[in-house]
Amino acid sequence: MVKIKVGILGSTGAVGQRFVQLLENHPWFEVIAVCASERSSGKTYKEAANWKISSKIPSKIANLKVRSCEPNFGAQLVFSGLDSSVAGEIEDNFANQGYIVVSNSKNHRMEKDVPLLIPEVNPDHLALIKLQQKRRQSKGFIVTNPNCTTVGLAMVLKPLHDAFTIKSIAVTSMQALSGAGYPGVSSLDALDNVIPFIGGEEEKVETEPLKLLGTVKNGQVIFAPLKISASCNRVSVRDGHMESVELIFSKKPEISQVIKVLSQFKGVPQKFELPSAPPAPIVVTEDETRPQPVLDRDIENGMSVVVGRIRKSNVSDLKLTLLVHNTIRGAAGAAILNAELLQAKGFLN
Amino acid sequence: MVKIKVGILGSTGAVGQRFVQLLENHPWFEVIAVCASERSSGKTYKEAANWKISSKIPSKIANLKVRSCEPNFGAQLVFSGLDSSVAGEIEDNFANQGYIVVSNSKNHRMEKDVPLLIPEVNPDHLALIKLQQKRRQSKGFIVTNPNCTTVGLAMVLKPLHDAFTIKSIAVTSMQALSGAGYPGVSSLDALDNVIPFIGGEEEKVETEPLKLLGTVKNGQVIFAPLKISASCNRVSVRDGHMESVELIFSKKPEISQVIKVLSQFKGVPQKFELPSAPPAPIVVTEDETRPQPVLDRDIENGMSVVVGRIRKSNVSDLKLTLLVHNTIRGAAGAAILNAELLQAKGFLN
Amino acid sequence: MVKIKVGILGSTGAVGQRFVQLLENHPWFEVIAVCASERSSGKTYKEAANWKISSKIPSKIANLKVRSCEPNFGAQLVFSGLDSSVAGEIEDNFANQGYIVVSNSKNHRMEKDVPLLIPEVNPDHLALIKLQQKRRQSKGFIVTNPNCTTVGLAMVLKPLHDAFTIKSIAVTSMQALSGAGYPGVSSLDALDNVIPFIGGEEEKVETEPLKLLGTVKNGQVIFAPLKISASCNRVSVRDGHMESVELIFSKKPEISQVIKVLSQFKGVPQKFELPSAPPAPIVVTEDETRPQPVLDRDIENGMSVVVGRIRKSNVSDLKLTLLVHNTIRGAAGAAILNAELLQAKGFLN
Amino acid sequence: MVKIKVGILGSTGAVGQRFVQLLENHPWFEVIAVCASERSSGKTYKEAANWKISSKIPSKIANLKVRSCEPNFGAQLVFSGLDSSVAGEIEDNFANQGYIVVSNSKNHRMEKDVPLLIPEVNPDHLALIKLQQKRRQSKGFIVTNPNCTTVGLAMVLKPLHDAFTIKSIAVTSMQALSGAGYPGVSSLDALDNVIPFIGGEEEKVETEPLKLLGTVKNGQVIFAPLKISASCNRVSVRDGHMESVELIFSKKPEISQVIKVLSQFKGVPQKFELPSAPPAPIVVTEDETRPQPVLDRDIENGMSVVVGRIRKSNVSDLKLTLLVHNTIRGAAGAAILNAELLQAKGFLN
Repeated sequence: MVKIKVGILGSTGAVGQRFVQLLENHPWFEVIAVCASERSSGKTYKEAANWKISSKIPSKIANLKVRSCEPNFGAQLVFSGLDSSVAGEIEDNFANQGYIVVSNSKNHRMEKDVPLLIPEVNPDHLALIKLQQKRRQSKGFIVTNPNCTTVGLAMVLKPLHDAFTIKSIAVTSMQALSGAGYPGVSSLDALDNVIPFIGGEEEKVETEPLKLLGTVKNGQVIFAPLKISASCNRVSVRDGHMESVELIFSKKPEISQVIKVLSQFKGVPQKFELPSAPPAPIVVTEDETRPQPVLDRDIENGMSVVVGRIRKSNVSDLKLTLLVHNTIRGAAGAAILNAELLQAKGFLN
Repeated sequence: MVKIKVGILGSTGAVGQRFVQLLENHPWFEVIAVCASERSSGKTYKEAANWKISSKIPSKIANLKVRSCEPNFGAQLVFSGLDSSVAGEIEDNFANQGYIVVSNSKNHRMEKDVPLLIPEVNPDHLALIKLQQKRRQSKGFIVTNPNCTTVGLAMVLKPLHDAFTIKSIAVTSMQALSGAGYPGVSSLDALDNVIPFIGGEEEKVETEPLKLLGTVKNGQVIFAPLKISASCNRVSVRDGHMESVELIFSKKPEISQVIKVLSQFKGVPQKFELPSAPPAPIVVTEDETRPQPVLDRDIENGMSVVVGRIRKSNVSDLKLTLLVHNTIRGAAGAAILNAELLQAKGFLN
Repeated sequence: MVKIKVGILGSTGAVGQRFVQLLENHPWFEVIAVCASERSSGKTYKEAANWKISSKIPSKIANLKVRSCEPNFGAQLVFSGLDSSVAGEIEDNFANQGYIVVSNSKNHRMEKDVPLLIPEVNPDHLALIKLQQKRRQSKGFIVTNPNCTTVGLAMVLKPLHDAFTIKSIAVTSMQALSGAGYPGVSSLDALDNVIPFIGGEEEKVETEPLKLLGTVKNGQVIFAPLKISASCNRVSVRDGHMESVELIFSKKPEISQVIKVLSQFKGVPQKFELPSAPPAPIVVTEDETRPQPVLDRDIENGMSVVVGRIRKSNVSDLKLTLLVHNTIRGAAGAAILNAELLQAKGFLN
Repeated sequence: MVKIKVGILGSTGAVGQRFVQLLENHPWFEVIAVCASERSSGKTYKEAANWKISSKIPSKIANLKVRSCEPNFGAQLVFSGLDSSVAGEIEDNFANQGYIVVSNSKNHRMEKDVPLLIPEVNPDHLALIKLQQKRRQSKGFIVTNPNCTTVGLAMVLKPLHDAFTIKSIAVTSMQALSGAGYPGVSSLDALDNVIPFIGGEEEKVETEPLKLLGTVKNGQVIFAPLKISASCNRVSVRDGHMESVELIFSKKPEISQVIKVLSQFKGVPQKFELPSAPPAPIVVTEDETRPQPVLDRDIENGMSVVVGRIRKSNVSDLKLTLLVHNTIRGAAGAAILNAELLQAKGFLN
């Protein structure tokens, strides 16, 4: 099989580096362009990126010249890890010029004809693409993945909502430092500390799942009618967001049913055996001291969400703790799985 | 004023060391006995204690001989930081021999005639003492303070409950390492990690506030009828428990009313100007990035609870984040304030 | 006594904040001006400073308007915590306008007629001031304190050099995060890591002690002829630089002599009982697990250097480990002690 | 090829777990017995081990019954990760009963007829085995690997000593928490701290390299005549020991020669392409901010030593910083490579 040529926008940043790492040896995609801001362009990737991942820079990429973020190279699809200060315009530009843009940035997530996509949760939202292409008068389009905290949460909500209809949830997150990018959080704020605020995060966690769990009718997403309250905290962890959740359902489940529904959950990526799909999107642990970031974040290469401490609550129908690898399943890995779904569904031809 | 002679049970442990530190130069109390297990007895305190506090061992205490935990010395009152594996029996023994036992241990907290006490919250529970003395046929008795996480929570619940009647709360805690004592949590479990479980903690947080907010009738505490759900996590912080709380009230308050009620809260310790009482038991911050353990835990010598992020919630009437210094206001300082209340109320004569 | 009016240059930065904190309630000095870059000027100090110290902003300072760094206010002396990118020119400007500048910045440290000063080490270097005043044709002048790592090292070298004549030393430092200012080191570089490089640091540690231990002859400092090799590392510690040192002497001392010389060391600040002077500038510990940053950095309000693990070496005459509080004795506290020495020696009239 | 059956002594401890992990899918060895103390025996490995590695317990091992440490099972070779309190006797027992014991424990390291072995450094020391077998009157024998800090150091010393003859070195280590096993270092000692002492460590680092770099004559190791001084510190890092080294040589090298000698170093494992041998035992980095534990410890699966900051010194001929993965190349991986060497050299038949 000839590989599909792809580019990476924002390739030198924290998410961009993960794209570079995860796409090394990808069976379907081949990175032929690494783009970044003017400051980097002209340098080799090795010179431009302040590489912060423990594995080496893939040798094919290390000596690629960094390009500016212009839609002038021969790739069909671009991954975007652009900063939100510039992502809006650049991504539109690429989509309007006929590129498929698979973005991790927040800018276009809530637009009406842009899928906010988790392949296991709402693959039917791909139906929006046709409308978007029409609007743009281009074969190009944008597909986005949610915020890192939302990804883990929505993956757990999906099977529970299907089975028991969620009315409301309250979530308190304990989020990793890598979520803020590099240099991101100062070590003086992180060491021996918790910060009870992350700018814009609670709003995203409270709204994105409503679109993700929504249904497409007449080319429009009808948001799911559940209510979400989020309290987001930064803790001294490198990777892996923990979320402590209380849930209220319309249909009251037994704990054993919840465990069964979560453990058996499979989606389109598992059915199609997409290259980056984990065998089980949700791993349930019955060890009451788990999940823990340091022990569990890398399960299935960081693509599974780990759920533990499933138990009754005095104030809701259920409480549990979940863990999602924020820069893999919550960012770069999420986007790559989205691109794989697009390919499997025939959007890349 | 001649100082009241006191002893410390479990004086070499983590809480015991805090007692030693906080009682140095206390205007009312003078430590004349430091007690510990047989292993330590006969050594000087300096030799027996593996001192882990950044200020020096008070010079008067450093060379005291450590005694075994026997009620055979001339003190009227003992502070107990004993491990729960031995606290039950030893504390009973002291109380039965006529000593006033002011304990931080969990063993007697929920007994019917033992006050579970926070001076700002339920000073009227001292009424139980008479019954306890009768049962013991002794002038001695036991008074306890709550679990460290409960202390911070109950102090915030008290004025809110009085003003708006709490129906239910859900709390997710992010607790400091010192809460587990020394050596306590392994560094390999703490570094770059969160542990979503603390043995026995959630049960304490879900039940102790019901007694604390209860009312005394006919010599019995009628538990408050609210419902609490707790999810307790250990994070990589030295001192200071953070708690993220969602609250539902009978009477729906405005945010401004909540801020006012919390800020203006005062109790008996403030009225009596007890030596360890902070000017305000609750400090409200409007900086949305606060409270933070490293910046706020030492406010008012660790005796005030700091509350921030007071805001509306999509699923409850209010959410907020609070911080309590777990080894001061949540343990040794709590017990000392209890002893000061006993003195102010005439129990030490 | 009427207090001496002082200003603080670079008052909103990390060192500037320490000046504000340490000068609260100073018996001799009163802060009447807080200066910072144009960006901050016009704001109140409370608004301009991103306050990162656990005690509160002193109330008198909180509402002071921040001024630009112009020598146009009624103070005799200014403390400088300016960034080295601007300190050179601004400090010269103040000195030329008649102000006494007590600086923590590196810019003027190695200038011929500028004292690089530790009051316990080389108070006789104040003799340079007269020459500097002459050059500037001003009553103003600049006095500097060394780099934070140098301070701890030079204080230990001084009594040893006097007693045994040091020929060479090799030092490996493990330096705290606060040394890099705020935001300084990224949390992603600090967590679970050591960084074996600090820009410019080794050069400072290898040269500044030579001036500090030098002798003044004919208005010039003759550098001490010892050799120093430094390897500087950043570790995940908030405050407190550790230094592991190997020393070679001309006169071979016994370990017991070294302990005696270090323990008994006193300087002018102790003799004059300067307000910030610790009773002993060097505290020797015989506990082989000490010094430790978390336990020992605050000894004598962070103004003493703690030395431990004094022992024989297979390759040198002696090895030891020392700890210095880098933002107190190594920065703001160092400058304040320098100012106190100036006052005691009659330079402030 | 039929795999060689091996057992693991001390299989549930920190080093034992690494043996289990690293031997999964080993091309030559198959674990058929996991042994531990009486407390664990009879349980499955999964139940007995408090598994602390982020990858899963290998499925073949998870359900193996843990055996006591008795030489009564059908394996030719055993790996020992036993605690030194019991390793001495148990290992002797196995060797005397005809087993080959490849040990990470310190007990037998310095015995005259026991090889202290790093395959790249002193493969010729295998000559001692014959004498040991004779003493034991058994085909069994013990081979040991050095202390984790020594491994990294000795691998760097070897090519330098061969080329330039080392006279003396001074090393200051910054060692990872995992070196102390589990639970090991308390989180309260690790967080925001450095501990300047590790029991027994400096002695090992000062003596083991002398044996490793020694030459075998008439069945005896003549120790290398260099002098070593070590200062060992514990820092808040999970894995990866950093070592800052000053070296004095007989033949003074240029920096470029040192880089060349280190980069080109190869040993028997590389020549024989042993399964666990890294392509280059030493990786030299010219990035002055490296090596860093979090970025570099996993290079070549943790089997290469990374050397950086090679530069001139004011007090010695050379200084540099090295990093070794303490639980892989410094412990379990070291022992496995030793076993591979034994197989390649024909000792396992």
